[in-house]
Amino acid sequence: MNDPSSEDQRDPLDNFFSPQSVAIVGASSKPGKIGHELVRNASQYQFEGQVYPINPNAETILGLKCYPSISDVKERIDLAVYVAASNILPKLVEEAGARGVKNAIIVSGGFKEMGEEKASYEEQLVTIARRYGMRIIGPNCIGVFDSTSRLDTFFYPHDRMVRPNPGGLSFVTQSGTFGLTFLEWATDSRLGIRRLVSLGNRCDVNEIDMVRYLGRDQFTKVIALHLESLSDGRQLIKETREVTKTKPIVVLKTGRVEGSKAARSHTGAITGSYQVCRSIFKRSGMILAESFEELFDISKAIEKQPPSKGRNVTIVTNAAGPSVAAADLCHERDLSIVNYSKETLDKLHSSLPPYAVIGEYVDLTGSATREDYQQTFKIILEDPSINAILNFIVFLNPPLSPDVVDSIAQVQEHGKPIVCWATGGEFSRQLITKLEEAGVPTYPTSERVVRAVEGLIEAGMRKEWPLPKSADSKRDLANSVFRKVFSEGRDMLSEIESKEVLRSYGIETTTDYVAKTDSEARSYSSRLGFPVVMKVLSPDIIHKSDLGGVVTNVGDPEEAARTFKEIVERIQSAKPDSRIEGVIIQNQLSSGVEVIIGSTVDKDFGPVVAFGLGGVFVEAFKDLSYGLAPLFEAEASEMISDTRAARLLEGFRGKKPIDIKKLADIMTKVSFLVSEQPIAEMDLNPVIVSPEGCAVADARIRVKK
Amino acid sequence: MNDPSSEDQRDPLDNFFSPQSVAIVGASSKPGKIGHELVRNASQYQFEGQVYPINPNAETILGLKCYPSISDVKERIDLAVYVAASNILPKLVEEAGARGVKNAIIVSGGFKEMGEEKASYEEQLVTIARRYGMRIIGPNCIGVFDSTSRLDTFFYPHDRMVRPNPGGLSFVTQSGTFGLTFLEWATDSRLGIRRLVSLGNRCDVNEIDMVRYLGRDQFTKVIALHLESLSDGRQLIKETREVTKTKPIVVLKTGRVEGSKAARSHTGAITGSYQVCRSIFKRSGMILAESFEELFDISKAIEKQPPSKGRNVTIVTNAAGPSVAAADLCHERDLSIVNYSKETLDKLHSSLPPYAVIGEYVDLTGSATREDYQQTFKIILEDPSINAILNFIVFLNPPLSPDVVDSIAQVQEHGKPIVCWATGGEFSRQLITKLEEAGVPTYPTSERVVRAVEGLIEAGMRKEWPLPKSADSKRDLANSVFRKVFSEGRDMLSEIESKEVLRSYGIETTTDYVAKTDSEARSYSSRLGFPVVMKVLSPDIIHKSDLGGVVTNVGDPEEAARTFKEIVERIQSAKPDSRIEGVIIQNQLSSGVEVIIGSTVDKDFGPVVAFGLGGVFVEAFKDLSYGLAPLFEAEASEMISDTRAARLLEGFRGKKPIDIKKLADIMTKVSFLVSEQPIAEMDLNPVIVSPEGCAVADARIRVKK
Repeated sequence: MNDPSSEDQRDPLDNFFSPQSVAIVGASSKPGKIGHELVRNASQYQFEGQVYPINPNAETILGLKCYPSISDVKERIDLAVYVAASNILPKLVEEAGARGVKNAIIVSGGFKEMGEEKASYEEQLVTIARRYGMRIIGPNCIGVFDSTSRLDTFFYPHDRMVRPNPGGLSFVTQSGTFGLTFLEWATDSRLGIRRLVSLGNRCDVNEIDMVRYLGRDQFTKVIALHLESLSDGRQLIKETREVTKTKPIVVLKTGRVEGSKAARSHTGAITGSYQVCRSIFKRSGMILAESFEELFDISKAIEKQPPSKGRNVTIVTNAAGPSVAAADLCHERDLSIVNYSKETLDKLHSSLPPYAVIGEYVDLTGSATREDYQQTFKIILEDPSINAILNFIVFLNPPLSPDVVDSIAQVQEHGKPIVCWATGGEFSRQLITKLEEAGVPTYPTSERVVRAVEGLIEAGMRKEWPLPKSADSKRDLANSVFRKVFSEGRDMLSEIESKEVLRSYGIETTTDYVAKTDSEARSYSSRLGFPVVMKVLSPDIIHKSDLGGVVTNVGDPEEAARTFKEIVERIQSAKPDSRIEGVIIQNQLSSGVEVIIGSTVDKDFGPVVAFGLGGVFVEAFKDLSYGLAPLFEAEASEMISDTRAARLLEGFRGKKPIDIKKLADIMTKVSFLVSEQPIAEMDLNPVIVSPEGCAVADARIRVKK
Repeated sequence: MNDPSSEDQRDPLDNFFSPQSVAIVGASSKPGKIGHELVRNASQYQFEGQVYPINPNAETILGLKCYPSISDVKERIDLAVYVAASNILPKLVEEAGARGVKNAIIVSGGFKEMGEEKASYEEQLVTIARRYGMRIIGPNCIGVFDSTSRLDTFFYPHDRMVRPNPGGLSFVTQSGTFGLTFLEWATDSRLGIRRLVSLGNRCDVNEIDMVRYLGRDQFTKVIALHLESLSDGRQLIKETREVTKTKPIVVLKTGRVEGSKAARSHTGAITGSYQVCRSIFKRSGMILAESFEELFDISKAIEKQPPSKGRNVTIVTNAAGPSVAAADLCHERDLSIVNYSKETLDKLHSSLPPYAVIGEYVDLTGSATREDYQQTFKIILEDPSINAILNFIVFLNPPLSPDVVDSIAQVQEHGKPIVCWATGGEFSRQLITKLEEAGVPTYPTSERVVRAVEGLIEAGMRKEWPLPKSADSKRDLANSVFRKVFSEGRDMLSEIESKEVLRSYGIETTTDYVAKTDSEARSYSSRLGFPVVMKVLSPDIIHKSDLGGVVTNVGDPEEAARTFKEIVERIQSAKPDSRIEGVIIQNQLSSGVEVIIGSTVDKDFGPVVAFGLGGVFVEAFKDLSYGLAPLFEAEASEMISDTRAARLLEGFRGKKPIDIKKLADIMTKVSFLVSEQPIAEMDLNPVIVSPEGCAVADARIRVKK
């Protein structure tokens, strides 16, 4: 089979997957050598295109005429695949470029991954590619597999590795081993594959190209994506937001450990971390997998089943133990096990034998027959409140006929997703394979079944990103503050300046005065009304409260005057060389929940906004969520509800709930601020939120240098 | 083979596993019937004991003479296995009891699990068992499997289910399906099994009996335990603490969802919850598995490998992707990937080919050969800092000879545990089987490999429970408070009374006075020194602060007098019918971390102590840990470090750390208090902990009725 797209519609990347001719540069006559196995796999199995082995020292390889150089091939070459030492590769690729070859896959390693020196070969490759308008996959990868053209660029022999059948899943990965494993698991569980790309070092073609390309590919129903690092996080999110409007992407990020860097703010400490990536991926339309197995399981479910229209599930089982475990998980993960309607219950009771336990769900017990399963499915499929079915089955029980597989498969005619738990030895395995051949994704543990259903639910959710209203801001005011800071060569804004900037973006803060003397403290505090908060104002002091530079609950003018002197004394004795510019006097907000709204320029994603519980809890609980700035509408509310802190804001034990919309509004405004202004890091901590409103009580902004 | 224990050493439970004669009551002539399959499995395979089918309507079954009743068998019967309707079972079991049979397994269901009415049959069974000194397993179970006697009481035909080989693992489960699945997975991965018990409804023999029994069994190396509910949590913990001194127990708890009950304290709301169970299991010497797969994986690792002597691991790999994921997990789960010594590094660099990447660990890349693996193992096994090896292997790569399996297996000669990642299709599966046959536990995902190694580390930890020092308490004082409360028919102690009780157990509290008038408020507050906290004292008000009944930071005598009046007014208007006994005036503790120490009588475990972050955070974060009261030495500190709140206590950002020992001491004293006094629920919230000390600021105690 050839790719069905006609010549003039072809994408420049198509020739990686459905070339009509392939040159294998570095072909070898020696079995076991990678250059030999590549020729064998391309020429002796199902790929029908021309194969040209290139090697100056051989006449023929595996019966094919061998060419000394790619320049010696007269026919058109759609794709060149390379296995050669990194130092000679630039020359070899240049030959192909000069010859008009537009697509190259470099399987060999020995580049960037070996250190600085070898990285230069990779740079040369990129220069050559740019010059000739070539695209390169790799180096250091296993290349591609296409289930239609049947081309692969693997060095795994066919007798060791069975290639999977065609289907709707495409997998993009940075790991050759994960690529290989995915395909072998797919073959085993009868999961149809469309395409695989192993990206390797990504000197040219990267995950963004591939997401865009496979997003357009009509035969790709779902994209699985595995990344160890991001080429350009912001661009990737932009692309996935587009693609996921019509096609699910399941994503796994590994390589999560980064040396933690010293940073001057809470939020700054987390740049490039998995926590940020995870949080932003979740809000990018992608379905987040936490492990390779989850990536595979969820993708498989989506490839085989329709998405679920909601979180209401039910269980049908003859395996009590695993079903109990699954019910636990449903509750933990917020899947709702449907209460059967009176009608459904009546039908179940009148149709099923007495051994069936009809409770939270239907347990047909070890006595279950095929007919029992059939009856149960028939009844529950008529219940409109059920969105998806979790089916558990022990095939070994003597009363159960193996053709129960057909009854399970028939459920699919009703358009509701079904996912199955089954496991065991050889006998069960054969029936599981039948089940999977019939399209029912089957898993050996309760956890995997539930996660797969959750994936189907996520796949069924509408992905839209309405633009947020532009913040109405007085940018001039903010601009002038930043100009002043830059002109003075500072990198930090004072608390007073920070709050001016915030207010210019419409963000409410406390009212702050700076007292230079105790008598100013007396008069400003009277003007504000009591109680007030007093804080030292000094460019040299970052953690004010650690040095006794913050006093709350100041109750009257005399106390304010006294406190002024005490703060100044404490700071002078604790840090004699610090410049004290005065003492800030601000209104003390009525008690509320202290949250942090922060921002940093993430190395992968650029400006991001963080939200979480404030104060000391930021560090102890790391209960933060993140979003790309500027935030889309509804994104801020999602960020809030993603934290455990959200429960504090919901108002429990008789307290009034917080106005989440108001808090979200501040977050959105912050996201505009950090997108538009030269801000490197920002901590608004605490922001006091209460039923009465939200206001920033302390703020710290560091500018970009 | 017969069980090696001689007749006079036999335990009353031995006949469940190695009987010399078995009667099958309810035997059937009809293939496919459970009563038929049981006879076939017992008589036609490897079990060598006598089998007596019992059925009044058959002459012979499967060539064996059939008896109308168990009374008609003249020979000794060691074990009776039952398949019959629940209503006739009491009579049938009575016949066996009268005949001197001491062990019965009831496979059939139709008892407690079907509701109240049928539960009575189960009670009758127990009465009969007591009368005749019989022990009963079941009903509603799949019974037992013994790998030495080769007896099983399953209805799964041998052609559908291959029984596993003998080995050191015994599995006790409340789920037949999990029992079956465990054995099938064991067969597949060449895990040797000693015994299986499916407990079913546990009318007599329960998990405590089995843990004790298998704890003494010299052929059981590790016990896997799965429970859906607990027969007697406290007794189980007592038993597991004994057994785990010498033998690992891996435990899984399912059935975690309970309808949440209304309760009057934070701590009371969690009785019978998984959170309590999990926390207490962790401190009972058992290794906690969160899923069935984890239960299997960890048990398998322990059965096959020696325990790990520490958390220092290394990785050897030709599979970069999964190794990167494993390194992530090691970091997340606090396993330390060893930094190689200079010597080890030198040896690796000089012995391995240039393609090997020697970094955080050894990545031999896709070019790896058997010799590379061998060299690497040789070198790292000489490094004394490495406790365990995580080996990753893709078998498909052409340069790798399949006999690398032997090199991996040989690592075991050095006594350090090795666990392997490998997966794939048929080719790989065969090599994985060889690897597992050679004793190397192998898993298809990074998560499972890392968790297995973690299990080996936990298995290597010494389990000891030194007795705590008895608290020096003035019990008389506490006793008199409780007497007073009971005599007045109350169920709650006042805050004042609660603190008296606490102080009598040596637990520091705030100093509290009760002011009845504003002028008393003035004088008491002056006596205490400022600031003070003032709280309404009323038996009718539980959540004082919600009604404005608590004021902190009262700064001088006049404010105290004013506050007295304000509190009384607020409470009178909010809840006019409440009895106000006065206003408590107490010293305000210097700022510290607010924690909760609580206690409840758990339905499974009896008195338990809870610890976590206090205030509103208890409900939002559910960051609580639990321990059985009274706590053993070191248990309180473990409970503290189990919470995320622990990080707040460690003192970060320049703050002084809390005296954890002092806090642990309070928890231990609390645990004595709740063990000795008639306390149903107790919340000490907040307990203020600071570098200066710990004291209880508020306390609520409810008595047992």
